[in-house]
Amino acid sequence: MIDKTFRYEEVASKIEKSISVLGLKTGDRLPSVRRVSAELSVSVNTVFQAYAILEAKGLIISRPKSGYYINSFAVKTLSRPDHKNYVPLPSTIEVSAMATAMMKNAREHGIINFSILAPVNEFLPITKLNKAVQASMKEYTGESFQYPLVEGHPRLLKQIARRTFEWNQSIPQDNILITNGCLEAINLCLDALTKPGDTIAIESPTYHGILQSLEVRGLKALEIATDPNTGLVLKELELALNNNKVTACIFMPACHHPSGAMMPEENKIKLVKLLSEKNIPLIEDDSLGELYFSINRPLPAKAFDSTNNVLYCSSFSKSLAPGFRIGWVSAGKYHAKLLKLKFGSNISTTGLLQDAIGRFLESGQYENHLKKMRISFKGQVVRYTVAINQYFPKNTKISTPNGGLSLWIELPKEVDALQLQRKAITEGIGICPGHIFSTLTFFHNYVRINCCPLWNIKIENAIKTLGRLSQKMIESGL
Amino acid sequence: MIDKTFRYEEVASKIEKSISVLGLKTGDRLPSVRRVSAELSVSVNTVFQAYAILEAKGLIISRPKSGYYINSFAVKTLSRPDHKNYVPLPSTIEVSAMATAMMKNAREHGIINFSILAPVNEFLPITKLNKAVQASMKEYTGESFQYPLVEGHPRLLKQIARRTFEWNQSIPQDNILITNGCLEAINLCLDALTKPGDTIAIESPTYHGILQSLEVRGLKALEIATDPNTGLVLKELELALNNNKVTACIFMPACHHPSGAMMPEENKIKLVKLLSEKNIPLIEDDSLGELYFSINRPLPAKAFDSTNNVLYCSSFSKSLAPGFRIGWVSAGKYHAKLLKLKFGSNISTTGLLQDAIGRFLESGQYENHLKKMRISFKGQVVRYTVAINQYFPKNTKISTPNGGLSLWIELPKEVDALQLQRKAITEGIGICPGHIFSTLTFFHNYVRINCCPLWNIKIENAIKTLGRLSQKMIESGL
Repeated sequence: MIDKTFRYEEVASKIEKSISVLGLKTGDRLPSVRRVSAELSVSVNTVFQAYAILEAKGLIISRPKSGYYINSFAVKTLSRPDHKNYVPLPSTIEVSAMATAMMKNAREHGIINFSILAPVNEFLPITKLNKAVQASMKEYTGESFQYPLVEGHPRLLKQIARRTFEWNQSIPQDNILITNGCLEAINLCLDALTKPGDTIAIESPTYHGILQSLEVRGLKALEIATDPNTGLVLKELELALNNNKVTACIFMPACHHPSGAMMPEENKIKLVKLLSEKNIPLIEDDSLGELYFSINRPLPAKAFDSTNNVLYCSSFSKSLAPGFRIGWVSAGKYHAKLLKLKFGSNISTTGLLQDAIGRFLESGQYENHLKKMRISFKGQVVRYTVAINQYFPKNTKISTPNGGLSLWIELPKEVDALQLQRKAITEGIGICPGHIFSTLTFFHNYVRINCCPLWNIKIENAIKTLGRLSQKMIESGL
Repeated sequence: MIDKTFRYEEVASKIEKSISVLGLKTGDRLPSVRRVSAELSVSVNTVFQAYAILEAKGLIISRPKSGYYINSFAVKTLSRPDHKNYVPLPSTIEVSAMATAMMKNAREHGIINFSILAPVNEFLPITKLNKAVQASMKEYTGESFQYPLVEGHPRLLKQIARRTFEWNQSIPQDNILITNGCLEAINLCLDALTKPGDTIAIESPTYHGILQSLEVRGLKALEIATDPNTGLVLKELELALNNNKVTACIFMPACHHPSGAMMPEENKIKLVKLLSEKNIPLIEDDSLGELYFSINRPLPAKAFDSTNNVLYCSSFSKSLAPGFRIGWVSAGKYHAKLLKLKFGSNISTTGLLQDAIGRFLESGQYENHLKKMRISFKGQVVRYTVAINQYFPKNTKISTPNGGLSLWIELPKEVDALQLQRKAITEGIGICPGHIFSTLTFFHNYVRINCCPLWNIKIENAIKTLGRLSQKMIESGL
């Protein structure tokens, strides 16, 4: 079933390319299913499925008894904001208050919440994982009452290491430290590497949690231009490193948040080499790395790290159980330092749920779960994209994520995202304004919409409302 | 049964006092059981039990068919080291490396471990608490997969607040934040209150985790003399505050670690008043507060805090389940700041085990468990005390803790505790040298022995070995 789904995607993407090559315009009729089937030597059903995918994306529409036509609602994809005159300069950060207020709002009952990034229970293997917890309770019960090892539960450490066996540079079990989620992992890295006043290179935009971590530590942010499709712009990074003393970098090369960008593999390799040569540690946030939409796992930068210069942070929060608060870090040559910091911070992470996740991974069920979840996530992202494209003001641009559950949306300049967020909350809808993903002003007309709530008519109406609110802001601004 | 035990203790303490008033010397015969029974208007059995307690303490010995005699092995109780010429000065801290190395050693298999402070499973309500976890798994299952609330699970918050209802100043539920253990609670307080270079007043000696937390943050320690019986010496604190700019204090008024000292209630009240007037926040570590040996719960300083100036930190690690990593903080006026820091640090603490502990507390079983555990702990402490008194070099002085599981032991000056710790580890025994409880040199001939391993002949032999090693160090030093 899974392989077929990817087959349909592949055919859909071939057709999409042909549309672009042929220069077909809105309203043009597409060749018949039968003809495409013969042309591509695939079954008629496959072409039907591929057309369905393109229809879901809003690229084409079917007219009964007539055929398929190019849709007028083709999605405008997002490109980099104009960084032309932008020279990266370290900046101090003040997003905490905004982010905290936002989270508080978003948690209120009855809110349709597009601001929290967490898979809803419908996408999680609750019954199976519960069984794993039950098994742990039974066999591990005595140990779970005693202080766990600082580095983590051996069963889980082993399974995490196993999942990197095929990487160019795999992660050894004794270079892993279990943390209370990915954010703690990143914070421990910052505590190990930095002192107040230091400058950290980050992506622009970046995950707001990273900005808060820098703010709390009195660190400065150096924002590097990041393309919503191909991720970090290496040329810009090199320039910035030549002009600034940078203590460490925090990047998301494999599945960027919030844009869903993916650095090409050669760029990841170049990045690792560049930072290793300059002796600048790379803190890699790969918490979304398993949620790719491609056929194979896009490797993280860590997979090419032959000098132990990458501090690789990840977690099960986005892929298995946000509430378990289990993440990890493989800190290369900084491992011993991180162990010490973790011990001093909260001794160790509770063992029972580590053991349970370890069992779940051992059983081989994780991979199946991920395969299913990726398809569900992609489905969610497509449905949300179509609706946003339909209901948001014209000239709205939408990211085409390579994974994850977030859409990064550029609204017309007239829309102030913070104002939109405030208006949305009064209508019972939570979104994240672009303001909290950067210290700069580039993204003040951007919003992040997480495609987390299961798609239904209520969600469609909420998107409609957001579109209406945005449109109103444009009109009142004119 | 419990009330009777305390009754016996009471009678024993009356007899002990009389011995001291009468000036009875080693070898003197005690009045007969029958006579004391008549004198005190208690049953003969009660006097027998009281004499047994005194015997266990090593104060008296029974000779068959003859009666009870004052023992020559009377325990030398600990008093304050000579702080006469000591003027508190802020000092930088470097204990991390030592503490970490120690913990690493202590974790090795086959070690008789007197260095980790955690109740062994025999003292924990494993079956009952497991049932609570099972119930949580069943009813709370969906929610446990999603991000928990930053402040914690409402069921647990409510129960924690309930336990303070009878305090002069109780803790409202909405002023509690659940953390990954007590150490995280203390660290969050430090992050909220301090910046690098600030001076923090601490007790001398103090819990080594606190010293590590100060070290990591580049904070200076101002050590205030602490009496092993009556705790923090207020006069010394006042002097030190007059001569130094102190940003915050971290004290353990209710059950000091490692000495087991207990501040008299009037001192706690004075302390809270003094710091409130001087506007210096008090971080109170009450993680051992529930493990008192007296009949009623000695109130923490927080119970007298009418100005919201006390940041009260505690946990279930020493009283219920070290491995669950569930602690909390009631930070008074700093609550909102701590919420923000917790969110930025690791989002929130995993909810499932919070819910389970909440259920366990709801059922009323916690109080029963604590009552039993306190008796067991006291029994452990008495047995260890008798053995240490018997096997350690003469002139060894031992603390008489008011609660907890630690003994704080002063060895003759010739014994360097760090050297003793190293020798002990080669014999398969883990202890903590006084060095890690202070930045000063007062305690270099002190060791902390946690009475955690269940008393048996192997433990007695380990104590014997420690005594022999100490004696050897004294002799080789002469």
